[in-house]
Amino acid sequence: MDYPILKTINGPEDVKKLDESQLDPLCAEIRSKLIETVSSNGGHLASNLGTVELTVALHRCFNSPDDAIIWDVSHQAYTHKLLTGRFGEFDTLRTENGISGFTRPDESEHDLFYEGHAGTSVSQAAGIAQSNKIKGNKNFAVAVIGDGSFGNGMVYEAVNNAGSQGGRLIVILNDNEMSISENVGAMARHLAVVRSKPEYYRFKAGTEKFLNRIPLVGRGLSDFLFRIKSALKRIIYKSSMVENMGFRYIGPVDGHNISNLCEAMNSAKMVNKPVLIHINTIKGKGYDFAESSPDIYHGVSQFNIFTGEPRQSGDSYSAEFSEALCEFAAKDKRICAVTAAMSIGTGLEPFFEKFPDRAYDVGIAEEHAVTFCSGLAAGGMIPVFAVYSTFLQRCADQLIHDCALQKRKMIIAIDRAGFVGEDGETHQGMFDISIMHALPNTTVYSPATYKEISRDLYNALYRDENLVAIRYPRGSVPEGLDGITSGDDYEIFGNPQSKIAVIVYGRIFFEAYKALEILGNEGIDVKIIKLNRIKPIPDEVLLAAEQCEDIFFFEESLRSGSVGEKTAAELSQRGFGGRFEHIAVNDEFVPCASIKRLTEKYGLDCDSIVNTVRKKINYEQ
Amino acid sequence: MDYPILKTINGPEDVKKLDESQLDPLCAEIRSKLIETVSSNGGHLASNLGTVELTVALHRCFNSPDDAIIWDVSHQAYTHKLLTGRFGEFDTLRTENGISGFTRPDESEHDLFYEGHAGTSVSQAAGIAQSNKIKGNKNFAVAVIGDGSFGNGMVYEAVNNAGSQGGRLIVILNDNEMSISENVGAMARHLAVVRSKPEYYRFKAGTEKFLNRIPLVGRGLSDFLFRIKSALKRIIYKSSMVENMGFRYIGPVDGHNISNLCEAMNSAKMVNKPVLIHINTIKGKGYDFAESSPDIYHGVSQFNIFTGEPRQSGDSYSAEFSEALCEFAAKDKRICAVTAAMSIGTGLEPFFEKFPDRAYDVGIAEEHAVTFCSGLAAGGMIPVFAVYSTFLQRCADQLIHDCALQKRKMIIAIDRAGFVGEDGETHQGMFDISIMHALPNTTVYSPATYKEISRDLYNALYRDENLVAIRYPRGSVPEGLDGITSGDDYEIFGNPQSKIAVIVYGRIFFEAYKALEILGNEGIDVKIIKLNRIKPIPDEVLLAAEQCEDIFFFEESLRSGSVGEKTAAELSQRGFGGRFEHIAVNDEFVPCASIKRLTEKYGLDCDSIVNTVRKKINYEQ
Repeated sequence: MDYPILKTINGPEDVKKLDESQLDPLCAEIRSKLIETVSSNGGHLASNLGTVELTVALHRCFNSPDDAIIWDVSHQAYTHKLLTGRFGEFDTLRTENGISGFTRPDESEHDLFYEGHAGTSVSQAAGIAQSNKIKGNKNFAVAVIGDGSFGNGMVYEAVNNAGSQGGRLIVILNDNEMSISENVGAMARHLAVVRSKPEYYRFKAGTEKFLNRIPLVGRGLSDFLFRIKSALKRIIYKSSMVENMGFRYIGPVDGHNISNLCEAMNSAKMVNKPVLIHINTIKGKGYDFAESSPDIYHGVSQFNIFTGEPRQSGDSYSAEFSEALCEFAAKDKRICAVTAAMSIGTGLEPFFEKFPDRAYDVGIAEEHAVTFCSGLAAGGMIPVFAVYSTFLQRCADQLIHDCALQKRKMIIAIDRAGFVGEDGETHQGMFDISIMHALPNTTVYSPATYKEISRDLYNALYRDENLVAIRYPRGSVPEGLDGITSGDDYEIFGNPQSKIAVIVYGRIFFEAYKALEILGNEGIDVKIIKLNRIKPIPDEVLLAAEQCEDIFFFEESLRSGSVGEKTAAELSQRGFGGRFEHIAVNDEFVPCASIKRLTEKYGLDCDSIVNTVRKKINYEQ
Repeated sequence: MDYPILKTINGPEDVKKLDESQLDPLCAEIRSKLIETVSSNGGHLASNLGTVELTVALHRCFNSPDDAIIWDVSHQAYTHKLLTGRFGEFDTLRTENGISGFTRPDESEHDLFYEGHAGTSVSQAAGIAQSNKIKGNKNFAVAVIGDGSFGNGMVYEAVNNAGSQGGRLIVILNDNEMSISENVGAMARHLAVVRSKPEYYRFKAGTEKFLNRIPLVGRGLSDFLFRIKSALKRIIYKSSMVENMGFRYIGPVDGHNISNLCEAMNSAKMVNKPVLIHINTIKGKGYDFAESSPDIYHGVSQFNIFTGEPRQSGDSYSAEFSEALCEFAAKDKRICAVTAAMSIGTGLEPFFEKFPDRAYDVGIAEEHAVTFCSGLAAGGMIPVFAVYSTFLQRCADQLIHDCALQKRKMIIAIDRAGFVGEDGETHQGMFDISIMHALPNTTVYSPATYKEISRDLYNALYRDENLVAIRYPRGSVPEGLDGITSGDDYEIFGNPQSKIAVIVYGRIFFEAYKALEILGNEGIDVKIIKLNRIKPIPDEVLLAAEQCEDIFFFEESLRSGSVGEKTAAELSQRGFGGRFEHIAVNDEFVPCASIKRLTEKYGLDCDSIVNTVRKKINYEQ
């Protein structure tokens, strides 16, 4: 396709210049471009297809970047990228040094924040609105947020606070009746009540007329009637939560009708206080396969445009974890599973099908998820909360205060721990170790194989006390290597008497395992110490390490708070006088690139391990 | 006072046995006991005086511990303690090994959770309610939560989720129109709307009668009227947020009338779904001084019962920080101050008075606070968020994702960093270093003196880039020692050529400084390396340490993720072969005790420093 209109758009000013008759063709071109690119690069599809008209309307009604447009999570900002000068590079979507799948300030002045976590946009927009107020300008701050994110507690905190602050703040609630998993919780019902409002807003006029026709004369009745009228009017105008919180409500608006959208936005600009515009959109709009299965097309790998068939994903750590959990849960009725709107991503769907009475999808609410688990545990259940490493960051205090401190059995299954690849810096699982390792009364496993996941889960359920975390990476075990199961806590490979130790855990073990053979062939005698339990660090591992002259610790994590750092410090405390070389991610956010590339970049692949050891040892000889 | 009734109460069963006529005298006894104990031990007063009748009613209507009673934050659980067998030991309130100022499961089976942070109770109660449902029993889970906590996002997540789960869950909203600081944000207004409901609930009956009297006959009008009636009824019944979320609403109830409270609780027990009981109480009820100044009497030190005069607190790190901030803000209009309902505790009150247009109290909403700062920074302001170390835990992800990743100038003032004393394990500032040190693009200062706070703030504002944290402890600089100002990043005291280094930062410096002289007198030649910037650790410090034979690192923090751990690891990486002794808090929650006692207990006071160094050095000689 040639994209005759889209290719002429170099920025928002070009969107504004278009004749209204060109808008529908433009949207069609955008949809083609989205489907073409995502089918080849993977990414978020359904949400982007749903926000095409919204984005066009935004760039016609507001002046980005003076007016700040902030995309919540920002997985739906592809059209925004296409309209703000990035059409030419859009084919590089989600590739190393290419266009990010999320907003990135270093990509464009129209991207105000690095985004990737839910529920941040209203707080950010409120901050910008206040800055504008302080500076005395007339710019707007606009947050675009989906109904899934709108259930996050932080949004409530922000709406609650922003309503009383005033300022030129507009929140667009993009209601596609669909958060990442099926919409859960009472928020859905609450929105449903709001949704029924067109009907009742139509009533409003009629009702008022009707009330005005009630005669306010005669006897003591008039006072009573007057009070009823006032009360009813107040109820009608003030009945929605956001209105009680100080926002003007506009909606619902057809989110696929650009002129309706512009009308609502221009109305909102005239209101002298924060406004919530409620729009309805269809996720996957314009691509049948995505429209009928928006959950599958929320985030996808490559797929065939004509058949809609996504590339099949085979086995994975997530799936194996889920299978093991279901096996245990069939026998033990205390086991409950909890997810924060990620039942598909974390592989928990089978659990939800088999044990619906013990399966809880709490929505995008990681904080509540953890503390809810704390309640389940207090009630005698064994709750298992499966969550991506990056989203675990959201519940650090709940892990400290509501889990570790309580000394009750709870299990956190940390999925996507380590590099996650193309989702980039906002999604890399780099912080879970420093968070979990700081927790007293806690055990942390970092298995490498499927068998280890299952075994660690058994130990977590029936051997260990208190809080236990099992962290595993995105993806699958390299073919043919699942058979190498280590001991419960650790395992030594190679010559146990060697004075050179390579310490690893998780999937980096496979790289080290390959390196062992290569180094052996070169006559470099090494032992690999594979950790399985990373907190507490097994004492036998420290003893084995202490006896070495050279220790190399390779780790797929941030250095700060890492297992390697703790091992070095512990050995130092014990008087270890040998060399300690720690290879980890050093105080930076890990950018977008394939997991393989990142493993190489940070010196954690087999070749790097071989080179690091070889260089040091040869230098010493 | 002899407490004739109270001393006969050994548990909830005794509360139930009392004749109704004994309840008011009991409440009077409880109030006396509360005032007597808090005036001598310090603690939370106003909130406890407000919940006396509520607690009596709870223990008459529910069967604790089968029915779970969960106190949000639990600073208002003193009466609960007095009624559950702890009257005899209550004089030990907030002392080492005494009765905690918060609920503690190891104190009583009636305390279900260690509590101290806001907004957790509804999630916990929901978890217990679900456990009861799974186990098939008829027990209730009751959460008691104040209006301040009710503005926390986690409560919204929990209410939202719990409403759709069902179960025997009762949430008691204790509305005293007063969170810790003055109630802020639109939540207050929202509650005000709910509050106006008695009036409008009274209308309801009348309105319904009135609507029913509208003739539904004749012409096409009848259909229209019928639809209006249905809509109005739906609005009347469904207008509050919690009702939309699946809760039955009961209230408001006079929270100082035990029979009204019991009536509401017994009604709630009959409802076959989650219930919210909205009660009104007066903070400080029954003690004039507390009733008229509930904010001052929220948490107090000792005070004179008859004059109400609290012990004067003198200078403090908080006050000095605030003064410095006000000075800079007077000259630089970009500086904004943000607090999460802690404008008094963090010393920000003067800022709020002087610069109301740039001062934001966002309520108990640390997540929003940080991300709101991120928005202010994007708008060109320099936001300063002052927060207690323990509550900083709430916003770990916001610090990672919305601050550090964005690379914009923001300042976090971390108050109460380190030991906090009598508030106990939930409040100790033990985790902020591991959280902040893991953040890329971040600078962290840990000043010891007031002059250093002011200087570090200047550097944060005008020298450093990106996110900067300044952490300082509770309390004040020891008399006469404020003059010792170190360099921007570090300072070496004692003989710089010494091969024995003691590394410290923050107020532990004063202990080391005293130890320096004592050791010197014994002929032990030591240098003290005082860190002021703890991230990045100054390279000069590492170089100075590298040249030593013995390093002692004394640190008022958890070991995991600490500065000492990082220093040891970094030195190890550099090939340091000397001894490294790290004294820190080792993988445990720090209990209640005075700051002085805790400093001794963990080996961080002057005597311990002297002994540790002396023992090691003498042993070696």
